[in-house]
Amino acid sequence: MTRTAFFISDGTGITAESLGRSLLAQFGDIDISMVTKPYIDTLDKAQALTAIIDATAVRDGEQPIIIDTIVDQQIRDVIRQSSGFKVDIFSTFLEPLEQVLGARSSYSVGRTHSIGSDAVYMDRIHSVHFALDNDDGARTHQYDKADIILVGVSRCGKTPTSLYLALQFGIRAANYPLTEDDLDEDGTLKLPKVLAPHRHKLFGLTIDARRLSAIRNERRPNSRYSSIDQCLQEVEQAEALYRKMHIPHIDTTRFSVEEISTRMIAETGLARRFSPR
Amino acid sequence: MTRTAFFISDGTGITAESLGRSLLAQFGDIDISMVTKPYIDTLDKAQALTAIIDATAVRDGEQPIIIDTIVDQQIRDVIRQSSGFKVDIFSTFLEPLEQVLGARSSYSVGRTHSIGSDAVYMDRIHSVHFALDNDDGARTHQYDKADIILVGVSRCGKTPTSLYLALQFGIRAANYPLTEDDLDEDGTLKLPKVLAPHRHKLFGLTIDARRLSAIRNERRPNSRYSSIDQCLQEVEQAEALYRKMHIPHIDTTRFSVEEISTRMIAETGLARRFSPR
Repeated sequence: MTRTAFFISDGTGITAESLGRSLLAQFGDIDISMVTKPYIDTLDKAQALTAIIDATAVRDGEQPIIIDTIVDQQIRDVIRQSSGFKVDIFSTFLEPLEQVLGARSSYSVGRTHSIGSDAVYMDRIHSVHFALDNDDGARTHQYDKADIILVGVSRCGKTPTSLYLALQFGIRAANYPLTEDDLDEDGTLKLPKVLAPHRHKLFGLTIDARRLSAIRNERRPNSRYSSIDQCLQEVEQAEALYRKMHIPHIDTTRFSVEEISTRMIAETGLARRFSPR
Repeated sequence: MTRTAFFISDGTGITAESLGRSLLAQFGDIDISMVTKPYIDTLDKAQALTAIIDATAVRDGEQPIIIDTIVDQQIRDVIRQSSGFKVDIFSTFLEPLEQVLGARSSYSVGRTHSIGSDAVYMDRIHSVHFALDNDDGARTHQYDKADIILVGVSRCGKTPTSLYLALQFGIRAANYPLTEDDLDEDGTLKLPKVLAPHRHKLFGLTIDARRLSAIRNERRPNSRYSSIDQCLQEVEQAEALYRKMHIPHIDTTRFSVEEISTRMIAETGLARRFSPR
């Protein structure tokens, strides 16, 4: 049995899809094909989509699930005529919210997805370029302007995390690779000099050595760099450094970039410059 | 009057916050302070949060709004005892979904935020590094592997968009800057030679010249590069090229990176490698 779920929005569809996936993840055993339909913002588009939903119902032999965040009442009415099963987020919750807030909702198209100010846009651009300019230890003289500095061995997830922090939260994240260049005479890793003045901003990433080896193998197959021995040793040294210097750290093996980033923010109390939408 | 809304989750909080902001955006006139509380995954954390909610109710003199996606029943019960007004997304929708799907929901902690496979992780890392390696025309020999190639004048939003496409959707996006180097003898912009074989992958970005000038001014104040005349001319030439070569394009002035990216996908039919959560 295959079911189809439609996530429908007059904007990006991000909210409808995010909620829809969360709800449907609770039915892990059912094979559900998920389709996102953003920018359904005219009656014509709504009618075309209704035809698709009806055709899907016939093909599947099952009622499609519809999860939407459309605000325009006329467009909603068209979608409502389809044969899908509607999970109506907005109308379900807006009325009780109107009651408790003692105000009418504007229920206006696009309001969900309003951009925010030019200032937010600038902050975002700045943060992304900050992450790029300060990627992989490329520059260190801007570390006084960094909100956080990620450290860790090569390919443990520093770059995607820095970029996610920049794009989603406007956080200025630099990142610095821990390498054998920073090994002390006794074979232990020491804190690189350029990082010492910024110790309070450091956050360590670590990763399962096997996972690391697999990732590095895609880049440089069968090299010393990607060998399991090398990965084991580097990860061990990095973790020893975190413990010795009391650097907060997170294991990226089991977590997505979203989880790493939000856990980091929760743990450090780092302030967002803006919020995801 | 200030109200407080709490977005509460046992995971990243992204779904609760995204839905919460969408709902509350419909009450534009009310001053609502929004607080995200992710990783509320133990009874202790839930109790501590309940105390915060109650204290907030006293401080505000108004009932706080609670929008949550916690799945664990015991943790929910603790939060429910707080004085907040609960918008209970999961229990509201899971029962009707159970009926229509003819199945019990697992209602399991963390299920909402499951990572997905190693393959997804690899795809994501690859796409991010692809975007970085092929940023700003740095390399062009990988264009045959690109899913899309963004073109546009300097600082019109190519880099953040490429990175967002990579992080959120696993799409391999290169980007190439249009500059005066590509002006033809007659003063019109011609399609750079390296792009010619990949015309079907091109997507143009354009931007309001005033906005562009403001962005460039932050980088190089009072330069020719950031002057309004220069920006006007570059934008005009880029737009003329898009029209002449029938390159689909979007004006980034009024849109967020999320909107630019999702509109691009909707318009081109570009396939995502994975989906945001």
